[in-house]
Amino acid sequence: MQQPYQPQQSQQRSDTSKRARMLISCPDRPGIVAAVSHFLHEHGANIVQSDQYTMDPEGGMFFIRFEFDLNDMERELPILQEDFTRVADRFEMKWHTFRASRKKRIAIFVSKEDHCLLELLWQWQAGDLDAEIAMVVSNHNDMRGLVEGFGIPYHHIPVTADSKPEAERKQMELVADKIDLIVLARYMQIIPQKFIEQFPNRIINIHHSFLPAFVGGKPYHQAYQRGVKIIGATAHYVTEELDGGPIIDQDVQRVTHRDNVDNLKRIGRTIERVVLARAVKWHIEDRLLVHQNKTVVFN
Amino acid sequence: MQQPYQPQQSQQRSDTSKRARMLISCPDRPGIVAAVSHFLHEHGANIVQSDQYTMDPEGGMFFIRFEFDLNDMERELPILQEDFTRVADRFEMKWHTFRASRKKRIAIFVSKEDHCLLELLWQWQAGDLDAEIAMVVSNHNDMRGLVEGFGIPYHHIPVTADSKPEAERKQMELVADKIDLIVLARYMQIIPQKFIEQFPNRIINIHHSFLPAFVGGKPYHQAYQRGVKIIGATAHYVTEELDGGPIIDQDVQRVTHRDNVDNLKRIGRTIERVVLARAVKWHIEDRLLVHQNKTVVFN
Amino acid sequence: MQQPYQPQQSQQRSDTSKRARMLISCPDRPGIVAAVSHFLHEHGANIVQSDQYTMDPEGGMFFIRFEFDLNDMERELPILQEDFTRVADRFEMKWHTFRASRKKRIAIFVSKEDHCLLELLWQWQAGDLDAEIAMVVSNHNDMRGLVEGFGIPYHHIPVTADSKPEAERKQMELVADKIDLIVLARYMQIIPQKFIEQFPNRIINIHHSFLPAFVGGKPYHQAYQRGVKIIGATAHYVTEELDGGPIIDQDVQRVTHRDNVDNLKRIGRTIERVVLARAVKWHIEDRLLVHQNKTVVFN
Amino acid sequence: MQQPYQPQQSQQRSDTSKRARMLISCPDRPGIVAAVSHFLHEHGANIVQSDQYTMDPEGGMFFIRFEFDLNDMERELPILQEDFTRVADRFEMKWHTFRASRKKRIAIFVSKEDHCLLELLWQWQAGDLDAEIAMVVSNHNDMRGLVEGFGIPYHHIPVTADSKPEAERKQMELVADKIDLIVLARYMQIIPQKFIEQFPNRIINIHHSFLPAFVGGKPYHQAYQRGVKIIGATAHYVTEELDGGPIIDQDVQRVTHRDNVDNLKRIGRTIERVVLARAVKWHIEDRLLVHQNKTVVFN
Repeated sequence: MQQPYQPQQSQQRSDTSKRARMLISCPDRPGIVAAVSHFLHEHGANIVQSDQYTMDPEGGMFFIRFEFDLNDMERELPILQEDFTRVADRFEMKWHTFRASRKKRIAIFVSKEDHCLLELLWQWQAGDLDAEIAMVVSNHNDMRGLVEGFGIPYHHIPVTADSKPEAERKQMELVADKIDLIVLARYMQIIPQKFIEQFPNRIINIHHSFLPAFVGGKPYHQAYQRGVKIIGATAHYVTEELDGGPIIDQDVQRVTHRDNVDNLKRIGRTIERVVLARAVKWHIEDRLLVHQNKTVVFN
Repeated sequence: MQQPYQPQQSQQRSDTSKRARMLISCPDRPGIVAAVSHFLHEHGANIVQSDQYTMDPEGGMFFIRFEFDLNDMERELPILQEDFTRVADRFEMKWHTFRASRKKRIAIFVSKEDHCLLELLWQWQAGDLDAEIAMVVSNHNDMRGLVEGFGIPYHHIPVTADSKPEAERKQMELVADKIDLIVLARYMQIIPQKFIEQFPNRIINIHHSFLPAFVGGKPYHQAYQRGVKIIGATAHYVTEELDGGPIIDQDVQRVTHRDNVDNLKRIGRTIERVVLARAVKWHIEDRLLVHQNKTVVFN
Repeated sequence: MQQPYQPQQSQQRSDTSKRARMLISCPDRPGIVAAVSHFLHEHGANIVQSDQYTMDPEGGMFFIRFEFDLNDMERELPILQEDFTRVADRFEMKWHTFRASRKKRIAIFVSKEDHCLLELLWQWQAGDLDAEIAMVVSNHNDMRGLVEGFGIPYHHIPVTADSKPEAERKQMELVADKIDLIVLARYMQIIPQKFIEQFPNRIINIHHSFLPAFVGGKPYHQAYQRGVKIIGATAHYVTEELDGGPIIDQDVQRVTHRDNVDNLKRIGRTIERVVLARAVKWHIEDRLLVHQNKTVVFN
Repeated sequence: MQQPYQPQQSQQRSDTSKRARMLISCPDRPGIVAAVSHFLHEHGANIVQSDQYTMDPEGGMFFIRFEFDLNDMERELPILQEDFTRVADRFEMKWHTFRASRKKRIAIFVSKEDHCLLELLWQWQAGDLDAEIAMVVSNHNDMRGLVEGFGIPYHHIPVTADSKPEAERKQMELVADKIDLIVLARYMQIIPQKFIEQFPNRIINIHHSFLPAFVGGKPYHQAYQRGVKIIGATAHYVTEELDGGPIIDQDVQRVTHRDNVDNLKRIGRTIERVVLARAVKWHIEDRLLVHQNKTVVFN
């Protein structure tokens, strides 16, 4: 009789209950780092990590990410947040705080290709993706057994020309207000505008080419046709423009004239898996900021 | 209730019933290619691919690999093999022929880390490893469910100081005369001399460092200690010398001072998986020749 | 007083006087390898290296490259060439033979960026590019001292809207019938149709992007604008279609949001240099075949 | 007549007269970032960039690098430095400030291989290495013309068993108190202990292997012998232990069984050049901190 797979015990993780993260963007001007770090120190926060990026010392945008520890998160974070509005207003900041212990809820959308889904599930069970995979949504039923074997709910919502509006309504019902991040793990349907509006910079897609080369369908066929010597994959946030959203990560692999389309697909699968998982990891660790259709990656 | 996972239908593979491969090594001298290709042509073989390598035009070794098609494999191959001894003797050749349709039987040995095993299973079910995974052998019981879920027999043979001789006897019983290739997918036990003799250049190990750096135990700790800026993994054939056998493939990834040992392990897992699977793929496609503790890779 | 730079003695090269190369393309059918290698053997040629590629076993194209040695090149090669027409006709072959000792004559075209030119000159003086750099042609005078310091003629042909036809006439006069390969080492002018016709698959350009991404002008600006995480360079044969010719080689480098356009240019320079030099090396070693706007690279 | 080479005008650099950098290491404890950034802000410094790294939140070491602008560098920096001792004492800091406009003076040591020297000279003339190359010192006279052509003094100090002490005395005389950084650009002599003491973490060597693999002499021969599938180069600070100092950067390239030792050397040259130049660039931009034989790289 088949035993359900008990994944190996993930190694003891460091205690995240005291850890918080803060992401800030604002117009650059003198004194921002001093003001924020002074503020954090006064509020009992021990800064463990900070990364910053200035687009241009004079008049550009400024981005900063802090990781800090608070001894009594529940009591201290709300106070800190309330008080911080004074600093934020002074510098015209857009800002967010995140508790590391509050796992983001992910919905993975998938069609028939399983490799990207599998990679996410493996990394998740190995403890490398510190999130909650709340559900898998698919227009096919193929991967139900796999997904349910991991103890994750599987929603099969077929999509046909006729059923499309109804399917989208069902999908939205599943994710609205319940999900922090949608991951399109080779989901072969166009995402409706309504989703993009509800999840701005919170839908990650993997495109199986080195964007902006080979936008659209059948990129491995396009790559083969053009005779490129390197193929790639691109993880990006989904925007209205097809394959045109902010790029989060890319990776590539060398190929030769010997590689036919099937080989390109096979080689590409490994790239896609790695790139998508890395992008998701960065997102759930609050390492990504978006500005003017580009990402700032504090990794 | 959990449904057993039905992996996606692998794409239609090209018919391999007519395809054979031939590997030859011999001292280099004029006329080898002409003699062999003339011979093959006369025996009705259509050469689809040939790769060769000469260590040195004057007096070195010569290596060649042919892929060819025979219309009536069952009738023609034995004749071809018999007749070829004449050519082989003339050039002092070591040679082998392989039918592509005859899948190699693999035994995977594994301990507690599952990532390399998972990658092999996944590539196998995706149709990328054209072999038969005949069994998984482990000194732990952890991955029984996973492996049996793929329909593959799982043999749990605990190894302790006391039980070692008995364990090795049982392992040998499982593999002797039944297995073409042993893959050590992060198997954390020393392989006894007897196995190495019975499976010369037929045991592939993945070592989690960029050999020859960091031979032996805890290579990621060693890498962290030394402060390297790139880590790697190495697939090699197992010989008597620890981590000293012929290297089949290696790959690497850039790291930084921020990566602690746990991070190195996590990053390394992806490298190990890819490198091991590639080495196994090359072996089962008869792309590897060994000479003086080095591999010739016709990929 | 300035001493002219005497480049280090390049290491003793192996004797190439006996070495020839043969490139063949033809429709695939059984017996080609056997026929050619048998022929070569009968004509006293010792095959040192052969590489082949079949697009498709049934009905595709077949490509093969031989390196072979002849003891008496001057006497034997013409006979071999004459006799080979019989084989070639039988298999409808397009074929060429090249003596390794007959160095290809290169004209390098350059504008104001010197890094690609410098790399070619440096690799050439180090003995890594086995060719004759016959001249450098430029629409600027900036690099005359550098080039003449290497003992290479420098032709300054200014190009303005008015002088264009006259300039092109002068350029053609310099290269026609005297040059085997034109290398555009960041030459910032459109190559006239007449050159492309006279030098089919004999003009190599370096484009400073990972084609087909960022065709045309200012590719690093385009890359910055799109926010890519990897930049690249592409060496290709020049055809009528801008940046659309057969790709010979590509390479890439990881970048981040911190890299402004100047940084991309600086990082890109190293990629461009390496990729262009590699493509030129492959061309002069007769390792490249072109078919349907794609290259077969026997490296 | 040969014209001396006038290298292309390097692009207009941004004004560095207001820019300073600060490197700090100290035991980690709460409030460091707040204290320093508050201090800098109060002293009129506009923080343009900061990078930090904590080895371990509890009880490890803390490293931080600031880039900041001061409107009146000459007047304000000395005050800032004087006042900072109070902060530094409180946190037991080791710290340095550097004016960006004060170019570091480099002595390049070289033997017979010119590729690493050439790369440094090119990058320097292209404006990519913001330093002063004060001299080239060599135990051979081969590259005098090249170096003097760049307007850089060339000191030929032959080294034989007998002349060694005298040679080292002369070398020390040249560099002591006049040079900020010694770069060993394939200098094939052991550096005497006295130099290492006088230039702690201020001598950069390029080793032509992926350390710690292939320490010592003839690493490409060692790599060939071992049959590795990837070769590399390592830039490191020189310490008493041969090839054992803190690694600054490494890079690698894939090779195959076809690559003989000469090929490995040729491929390796490109890696060595790029890695050494990158390490030198990071050093002169004050991006490197050393702790327990490892580097922290704020790039």
